[in-house]
Amino acid sequence: MNILITGITGFAGSHLAECIISLYPEHQVFGTKRYRTKMDNISPSTLEDITWIDDCDLTDFKAVLKCIKASKPDRIFHLSAESFVPTSWSNPTKVVSNNVVSQINLFEAVREVFGKQDASKVRIQIAGSSEEYGLVHKHEVPITETNELRPLSPYAVSKIAQDFLGKQYYETYGMHIVRTRAFNHTGARRGDVFVCSTFAKQIVEIEKGLRSVLRVGNLEAVRDFTDVRDMVRAYWLALEKGEAGDVYNIGSGMGYTMEAILEILTEDFPYTIEQDVTRMRPSDVPILVCDATKFKDKTGWNTQIELKETLQWLLDYWRDKI
Amino acid sequence: MNILITGITGFAGSHLAECIISLYPEHQVFGTKRYRTKMDNISPSTLEDITWIDDCDLTDFKAVLKCIKASKPDRIFHLSAESFVPTSWSNPTKVVSNNVVSQINLFEAVREVFGKQDASKVRIQIAGSSEEYGLVHKHEVPITETNELRPLSPYAVSKIAQDFLGKQYYETYGMHIVRTRAFNHTGARRGDVFVCSTFAKQIVEIEKGLRSVLRVGNLEAVRDFTDVRDMVRAYWLALEKGEAGDVYNIGSGMGYTMEAILEILTEDFPYTIEQDVTRMRPSDVPILVCDATKFKDKTGWNTQIELKETLQWLLDYWRDKI
Repeated sequence: MNILITGITGFAGSHLAECIISLYPEHQVFGTKRYRTKMDNISPSTLEDITWIDDCDLTDFKAVLKCIKASKPDRIFHLSAESFVPTSWSNPTKVVSNNVVSQINLFEAVREVFGKQDASKVRIQIAGSSEEYGLVHKHEVPITETNELRPLSPYAVSKIAQDFLGKQYYETYGMHIVRTRAFNHTGARRGDVFVCSTFAKQIVEIEKGLRSVLRVGNLEAVRDFTDVRDMVRAYWLALEKGEAGDVYNIGSGMGYTMEAILEILTEDFPYTIEQDVTRMRPSDVPILVCDATKFKDKTGWNTQIELKETLQWLLDYWRDKI
Repeated sequence: MNILITGITGFAGSHLAECIISLYPEHQVFGTKRYRTKMDNISPSTLEDITWIDDCDLTDFKAVLKCIKASKPDRIFHLSAESFVPTSWSNPTKVVSNNVVSQINLFEAVREVFGKQDASKVRIQIAGSSEEYGLVHKHEVPITETNELRPLSPYAVSKIAQDFLGKQYYETYGMHIVRTRAFNHTGARRGDVFVCSTFAKQIVEIEKGLRSVLRVGNLEAVRDFTDVRDMVRAYWLALEKGEAGDVYNIGSGMGYTMEAILEILTEDFPYTIEQDVTRMRPSDVPILVCDATKFKDKTGWNTQIELKETLQWLLDYWRDKI
């Protein structure tokens, strides 16, 4: 099969590529990149295993059309997005329009290249997010797919729009679109603007004498963290076994406060910790814990890696890098 | 008060402007227009009563900022949008990004001009649509605000995104945003691409010997039509009496098939009617009937004009025009 991954140079994308290349070497993996895309997440051997679609800005339909013509994908994992919540407060139109337009271009290019009959044979995964649920009440946890959506950032709204567009293109054209709502996931290569990774990076900097204080945001927020390797396995299964048009929550089902995460990472070593208001969000989601029963029942997926191991991996990643 | 109406040269916008000018002459009405905006809907006297913000493309933040600085609005009715469903199949990125970006620009310009303290004093109405409900099952009719959203067009998804953005800016910044979900509305000046208006226009063309056949699309669809004058009164009340952050369905509660509408318009005159596949949609909403109880209870609104009178007004509009 031809597998197209958008956002392949990103966090989840690079892990998904490695997962497919190692488990299913018979498939050909295509990846989009743009002029000036950072390639830090792609190892030299992975670089060679991927067929690159260069200069492919997904907001440009001409470029997306060329990409679909070149890759003729059987599967598309659409992971490319502006994915950092705070950016969506400072750059709201950019984040929302980028995420929405990129996805429409992808759908329309598939319709254009494959035609009415064959467009529905291409299986497309849409990467939604637990941020879509937003303001969740304590009695609603763990969260199922039918929970009300109460987004608290323009990013979250962009993911809701992507989610509904996926559903709508399925209803309108019968396309095989599977929507996943991933809860938080982490591991090596996670950008240092994301919470576990910024904690781990600062700890390593303190270990190496490069800083003295660990700066944190809201430590009371509860999140459900899955190892990114478990997450990308779930994405694969979503297209192999998920129902077209359907939506699935993906996450471990275990909620941790940021404080508990910090305790695992620091192993009770007494770091000097300071709360930094610039790391607090204008509106924050207090608690997000996943009920992935629907997805587990459909695909047989479960997490295989414990959080402690994931965080250790993340620390080692920063120890290598700094 | 200063009242800003975006989309004031459009169908609902022009009627809202006239409604405010005649009922509340003490208020100053501001309206945005662009280079080349068609002014057909604005009568010479209304033209003089409105303070025009020229050259204001809402997708351009600089222009929107200038508009908010110039109008210093106490109320904003945000009616500007790409509003024709079929256009969103042929031009999906344009429709979705236009509607989403315009609204974010408006919110952000209000935040910028009024500042943290005063931004929440500006009351903003967001014009959502019954299309957000999309695929409605018969047992769900009439539709309340808690009905599941199952959009069937990119236009519908754009309205969902606008709706959730309104909610999110309320949650994040405490802005006074009221979301309305208008069911179908019609009357004089309705564009001839909309169903009642295309029926009425063709009937008048047949009366005048300019055509012989009345071409129609899907006559089985059931819709809830409200007179546009009742609708714009509802918009006004939404900001005077509606709850910030809340969402309200607005519609008469009466469902008519397109065939029944046609019968009222033709008064049983035996026109030659032909079904035209190009007027059928790739995915259509079979039935939309509004439950406006929440809005009526909150504001005391009810419809005052009967559909027969509205359709007569629409026919007379075309008789004048053709």
